[in-house]
Amino acid sequence: MKKTQLTLVGAGPGDPELITIKGIKALADADVVLYDDLVSPDLLQYAPNKSEKIYVGKRVGKHSHTQQSINELIVFFAYEKGHVVRLKGGDPFIFGRGFEEIKYATKHHIPTRIVSGVSSAYAVPALYNIPLTSRGVSTSFQVITATNKAGLLTKDMHAAVRFKGTVVVLMGTRKLKEIAELYRTNGRSEEKIAIIQNGSMPNEKHISGKMENIVCQAKAAQIGSPAVMVIGEVVGLSQNLHKQILARYGE
Amino acid sequence: MKKTQLTLVGAGPGDPELITIKGIKALADADVVLYDDLVSPDLLQYAPNKSEKIYVGKRVGKHSHTQQSINELIVFFAYEKGHVVRLKGGDPFIFGRGFEEIKYATKHHIPTRIVSGVSSAYAVPALYNIPLTSRGVSTSFQVITATNKAGLLTKDMHAAVRFKGTVVVLMGTRKLKEIAELYRTNGRSEEKIAIIQNGSMPNEKHISGKMENIVCQAKAAQIGSPAVMVIGEVVGLSQNLHKQILARYGE
Repeated sequence: MKKTQLTLVGAGPGDPELITIKGIKALADADVVLYDDLVSPDLLQYAPNKSEKIYVGKRVGKHSHTQQSINELIVFFAYEKGHVVRLKGGDPFIFGRGFEEIKYATKHHIPTRIVSGVSSAYAVPALYNIPLTSRGVSTSFQVITATNKAGLLTKDMHAAVRFKGTVVVLMGTRKLKEIAELYRTNGRSEEKIAIIQNGSMPNEKHISGKMENIVCQAKAAQIGSPAVMVIGEVVGLSQNLHKQILARYGE
Repeated sequence: MKKTQLTLVGAGPGDPELITIKGIKALADADVVLYDDLVSPDLLQYAPNKSEKIYVGKRVGKHSHTQQSINELIVFFAYEKGHVVRLKGGDPFIFGRGFEEIKYATKHHIPTRIVSGVSSAYAVPALYNIPLTSRGVSTSFQVITATNKAGLLTKDMHAAVRFKGTVVVLMGTRKLKEIAELYRTNGRSEEKIAIIQNGSMPNEKHISGKMENIVCQAKAAQIGSPAVMVIGEVVGLSQNLHKQILARYGE
């Protein structure tokens, strides 16, 4: 049997080609793969045929594994089978609860390793040519979530309204109306915003506008989860670029 | 001749295995590769033998290409040779000036595409088990640079002292003394900080402590550029984990 080990691997934003070489090598060496909802099933083919592939998703409306049960599965399989690869959407250390898994495994004497992945926080905006920073426009960015455990708008979201740089909001679609209202009451109805649902996947959707009209646009386009929201002047850069391309080639 | 095209590819934080499959496919299709300093030379092997590989780095102390000259090279080679791959360290849209290249190419009627890369902003801290977010500890992060064109501490750095979440500072090593002083005058000498130089490379260096002693540590370890600085409670998570591992296995 192989050495007991845990490797956290970031699968990237959805497109199976956005995994790293290192991530694929980890998968190829796996005895067990524990994978999430936001991971492309195509990635499982990199794991050996004889390895076990176990779905441990937590998405709303489906049978759910708790974080505690995932932690316990990691420890169980690491001792039972050897090398556990924990394949997570995006990057494991950005809202991925990866540290909790590292900590739990360490407590149980399992050596751990992390293979970073491309985070959807910037890779999804990039699909629409929205950079998170751009010289002279935005020299910083922050990444936050919009909803807390109680279902309310986070303190982070309230504070972000006064941030000068680009704001990326994850898990925010359901709070869009409240977010737009927050910006309005802070005199920032003109702030530019883009929302991309299912970024890098075949069912991708995209809207782009200002805070004052985004709720209406989102309703018309039936924007849902999971989505990445980008707020700030950098959205305008992308809007201008696309106008230029459209003016040249038509719709 | 192939179709005129520009693909921006993020090479990741340094380790050549942290490039994506999509990035490698773009390289394999390149007629010309324009690459930066922070890119591993190992990655150039993925480009065809007959492709041209041109160094366009801008690092301090070496012969420098200006951004304008890089833009012009992109356009020149796209029309002269076909598919230009612009290989950039980290991610092209995070302090990478990638948007300027997309904009310039678009102005010159060159179709563009972006392949995101793993950003050192989170992948380098991850090497030391520092997550940028962790439930109950930090629910947000921001990424900033410390120095402006005039060589002074940025406004972003001044504002970051009041941010509740994790702060990642890029290009900050030379300003470390001023940053520590800024935190001290804001009553935050106890704030935890880690600095990793040459993250994911064989010559990697790492220090971790509090604002009040970090300048001394950096001097002792001779920390230089390029480095990633992480400030916040998440650094403490990593410190505790490493204490636990050391207590078990010794130094």
